[in-house]
Amino acid sequence: MSKNEEIEEIEELEETTEEAVEEISVEETLKQELSEMEDKFLRAQAEIVNMRNRHNKEREDSAKYRAQNLAKDLLTALDNLDRALEIETNDEHGESMKKGIEMVREGMLHAFKEAGVEEIDSLGQTFDPNKHQAVQTIPLSEGQESDEIVQVLQKGYILHDRILRPAMVIVAQ
Amino acid sequence: MSKNEEIEEIEELEETTEEAVEEISVEETLKQELSEMEDKFLRAQAEIVNMRNRHNKEREDSAKYRAQNLAKDLLTALDNLDRALEIETNDEHGESMKKGIEMVREGMLHAFKEAGVEEIDSLGQTFDPNKHQAVQTIPLSEGQESDEIVQVLQKGYILHDRILRPAMVIVAQ
Repeated sequence: MSKNEEIEEIEELEETTEEAVEEISVEETLKQELSEMEDKFLRAQAEIVNMRNRHNKEREDSAKYRAQNLAKDLLTALDNLDRALEIETNDEHGESMKKGIEMVREGMLHAFKEAGVEEIDSLGQTFDPNKHQAVQTIPLSEGQESDEIVQVLQKGYILHDRILRPAMVIVAQ
Repeated sequence: MSKNEEIEEIEELEETTEEAVEEISVEETLKQELSEMEDKFLRAQAEIVNMRNRHNKEREDSAKYRAQNLAKDLLTALDNLDRALEIETNDEHGESMKKGIEMVREGMLHAFKEAGVEEIDSLGQTFDPNKHQAVQTIPLSEGQESDEIVQVLQKGYILHDRILRPAMVIVAQ
């Protein structure tokens, strides 16, 4: 082999190696890009599943507590109905008005119930700071349990598991 | 070149071609897979944007019409309040009860307004089949416009742009 031929052979060998390296490198790069893209796709897919779950939960909550604002704003009106029913009447007109008020009250409570709102059970119950607000305590009389609610000053209301307004009560201690 | 040498050369050439084809094929396959994966990723990304927009719209609508069910269920109670206020009173008790009822009515209408519910403007307005239900027509009198609402038998209510209940009216024609 001449010197020149040797050089040529070496050069050829080098070229082949470079080509091979280049080919492997292109393949490797593609493989890596594919792997990265797959990763991005899988993360996007996971995000879609998360969003769907989050939104379903939100939709459920939103439906469950839908009545919250309006119901809360109507509690004063309901209090006033209760108060109007306490007024004594002594004639026919007053009686028929009272019947009308009673119908309104029943209608409101029915609509409230449909929306998930109910009065908090208070009188005779054990005081529960989550549902009741004690505005006064009186000494325990005979036959009363400790922490028993003996008077309700203002009714409380609950929407499913959310307190719209705690009941204002007097507790025996 | 001997016959054998020639065959060897041809075989070598074939092998090289096969390898080249194989390498191109691997590269091409990878490129195609990458392009497909990229496509899947972009579609997932677009789906995320769509979901977000859809849910924002849904959330807005849900907030806007949140009061719909409860408000609709309370219309009868409101009608009964109106009716109770029409009863004549002739004593103190009746008067104070009436004041109580008036307060309840104001309170309900205020809560309704906060929730986006308002009475449909009817008396003296031109009949609109989207908001009013004509239960009777009477001949046009002097000074009345054609299709003018001359009496409201039952009030109608609207929640933003949604009719909760059309007004029941008598129309002059």
